[in-house]
Amino acid sequence: MEVRSRSFEFISKNYRNYIDLLKNLVSFRSVAAWGTEDLRACAEYIAEVLRERGFSTFLKSAGGAPAVFAEIGKGSRAVLIYNHYDVQPPDPLELWESDPFKLTIKDGLIFGRGVADNKGNIAARIGAIDSLLDYLDDLDLKVKFLIEGEEEIGSPTLNSIVSEMLDWVRADGGIWETGYLRRNGSLSISLGFKGMLYVEVILRGASRDVHSGMAPIVPNPAWRMARLLTKLKTEDGKILVPGFYDDIDPEFVRTAEELIMKMNLEELEEMKEELGLKEFVGGLRGFEALKELHTKPSLNVSGLYAGYTGKGSKTVVPSIAGAKIDIRPVPGQKPEKILENLRRYLSELGFSDAEVVVRSMYPAGYTKPGEAIVRASVEAAREVYGLDPEIIPLSGGSGPIYIFTNIAKVPMTGAGVGYYGSRNHAPNENIRERDFLLGMKHVALTLLKFTQI
Amino acid sequence: MEVRSRSFEFISKNYRNYIDLLKNLVSFRSVAAWGTEDLRACAEYIAEVLRERGFSTFLKSAGGAPAVFAEIGKGSRAVLIYNHYDVQPPDPLELWESDPFKLTIKDGLIFGRGVADNKGNIAARIGAIDSLLDYLDDLDLKVKFLIEGEEEIGSPTLNSIVSEMLDWVRADGGIWETGYLRRNGSLSISLGFKGMLYVEVILRGASRDVHSGMAPIVPNPAWRMARLLTKLKTEDGKILVPGFYDDIDPEFVRTAEELIMKMNLEELEEMKEELGLKEFVGGLRGFEALKELHTKPSLNVSGLYAGYTGKGSKTVVPSIAGAKIDIRPVPGQKPEKILENLRRYLSELGFSDAEVVVRSMYPAGYTKPGEAIVRASVEAAREVYGLDPEIIPLSGGSGPIYIFTNIAKVPMTGAGVGYYGSRNHAPNENIRERDFLLGMKHVALTLLKFTQI
Repeated sequence: MEVRSRSFEFISKNYRNYIDLLKNLVSFRSVAAWGTEDLRACAEYIAEVLRERGFSTFLKSAGGAPAVFAEIGKGSRAVLIYNHYDVQPPDPLELWESDPFKLTIKDGLIFGRGVADNKGNIAARIGAIDSLLDYLDDLDLKVKFLIEGEEEIGSPTLNSIVSEMLDWVRADGGIWETGYLRRNGSLSISLGFKGMLYVEVILRGASRDVHSGMAPIVPNPAWRMARLLTKLKTEDGKILVPGFYDDIDPEFVRTAEELIMKMNLEELEEMKEELGLKEFVGGLRGFEALKELHTKPSLNVSGLYAGYTGKGSKTVVPSIAGAKIDIRPVPGQKPEKILENLRRYLSELGFSDAEVVVRSMYPAGYTKPGEAIVRASVEAAREVYGLDPEIIPLSGGSGPIYIFTNIAKVPMTGAGVGYYGSRNHAPNENIRERDFLLGMKHVALTLLKFTQI
Repeated sequence: MEVRSRSFEFISKNYRNYIDLLKNLVSFRSVAAWGTEDLRACAEYIAEVLRERGFSTFLKSAGGAPAVFAEIGKGSRAVLIYNHYDVQPPDPLELWESDPFKLTIKDGLIFGRGVADNKGNIAARIGAIDSLLDYLDDLDLKVKFLIEGEEEIGSPTLNSIVSEMLDWVRADGGIWETGYLRRNGSLSISLGFKGMLYVEVILRGASRDVHSGMAPIVPNPAWRMARLLTKLKTEDGKILVPGFYDDIDPEFVRTAEELIMKMNLEELEEMKEELGLKEFVGGLRGFEALKELHTKPSLNVSGLYAGYTGKGSKTVVPSIAGAKIDIRPVPGQKPEKILENLRRYLSELGFSDAEVVVRSMYPAGYTKPGEAIVRASVEAAREVYGLDPEIIPLSGGSGPIYIFTNIAKVPMTGAGVGYYGSRNHAPNENIRERDFLLGMKHVALTLLKFTQI
């Protein structure tokens, strides 16, 4: 326990230095959506900070913002830490109570764009490594940082960047960018993310919108779109694309369902109330709802449009009807195959003229709960936060984690300095000072435990 | 034929004066959508022009732009001429080749906003009356003008204005604002307009849009909207609202179908080609398509929306799905009853939570082809244009003609100085100089024949 207590002592004594580091990170306007020079400047600053500590570093890009690669230690066991230095736009600015690009501390809360998502985690993790720097050789540990700059716009070039760096990226375990503290004080750890198949389905009628006096004879694609959508899903939520559920990994389902049964049901009921819902889809309740949310694939209409969608009335026969559909596959499912089945199915239903434009396509990524890095993170969380963490098999959302778990074969676990009130992506993004300190200890302890498993 | 030849001689000799009058009318920026003082100024100018000729005039409004009432002659037979002095906005301005509010004549074409719709008809009709002014007593004819200023925004106050003036408005026959010359040179005369029941149907889910990671459990109203729409109409266009077709006037259908069989099919085929359509709804062709268009009620989706409808992708479970639905009843159908049946039907289908917001509601208006004013207009058209006019039982569009035909019980017929290339509502609106002259003669001859039937 000597290393552990020295590490924790270092963190308790020095954690304010890492708030200063966070202050510098926040000052970069590294908004991925803006695509400005601030992105590269932020990447270079991080590389410099890591170089000062002895990391060997380089930047690599594939047409977009560069990713920072940094490595330290000669140990035989490697851990990969994934973060991103880019942030969401600060809009709407008028709702911020402080300058989003100037770190502001008030009543134990730290405000600024990116403090939770994801610059606070960069700073905390650098602090955690610093606390272990003197012992890396004893621990036989190598630490790698991969910090990209396009996460908030869907990581469009990360796959290309990583594909060329597979040997470098490989590791025995990895720490994913996020995780957050729940209301009861426990850490929420997600073991993976669903994939994404985002398609826009477009049906066309006449070559232009026409006066709706012509409706008796001019075909209106809105009617066909309505019919098409009813063929994709039953009223109680079963997805009707042929073969849709075939490839789901049964081993994933088994372990995921076990995890679900240990989850807390409170947040589900709170959410139902907050959203003003009488009931969830198909009357789902309790663990069944959590299973649906965290282990099942989804098919959703994110957007639907035809004709005049503004205020008041206008009378047209629309020439186009479109549906933006996001499908989220779970482990085992192949988005390419789902797309192929969807296209064939639409054709069989009489919609062979439907355009299916693919906007995003990648599979789910998942790490088994028995992996060393997960066990290390769970045990560390229990000790640092004094409560069993909440383990979520798959986040309801999607992310490019498959690049690590499926391609580079790195088991990944989440951790983070944010909390339920962090307002990621929204004005007044914030973290709690105490969580920053504890998050740093959690990462340090995770790495220590990882070397002992 | 003495009056006729003197009238025609007057018109041939003086018609350029009425182009000057049209020039003055076009110079008023009487755009109903803008609601500016130009509307009243234009109304006052027209009243002044008519007063100079001996008309007794007054303006009347019901909270919007005033309508001009003008009357001349002591005859026992009265004719009512309906026009509107308001125009559509000139946008997009950059596509005009001349100033829209400055009459411009080039190569036999007269350009300006409103020359076809509807100021050209005001000027031509004043010319036609002028040619008959000396003979009104001999003809035992009284002529009334009702010229409103809100037609282009749906005549929101016309019904109130007319309701208080029913005795004044009553007449033995009336001439509606429009009509146009077809490619083959014949006059197109519509005997009426369908009504309008415009509703916005809204379904709600959660109290706000949520991240579509929640799609497995949060209800999405877009799916329900799709299901709702498929219950309104079959694939081949049959409307499924109970009792929808019950009240259609069989006498209307019989006479309308007779008229359809005399119509020209060419324009239908041209339109199909211009709109890039392989076929019309349900494979309709020829007279069957014309029957559907000009005698049957319609139910159309003018707009459909849910969630994110912009470019690219965003992932949400929409909290609202809406459909803008325009229903166009034909003679006999009562929009209030259709609305009631629609509401009950949606409720029975499980959509009792659907909000049905009514944006517009009025019945069809139709005049029988045997009415004196129609026969007069048809005979006059045959003589002036040298071809049988094309009689359309109901225009595919809608209009407030029911106020005259159904409430004030005035049989109405159309006539107009525009042509197939007039570009109503669009940049470079224009009429042909020759049509302006002939249109003036057509109205004069219609009135003469009307006194002789």
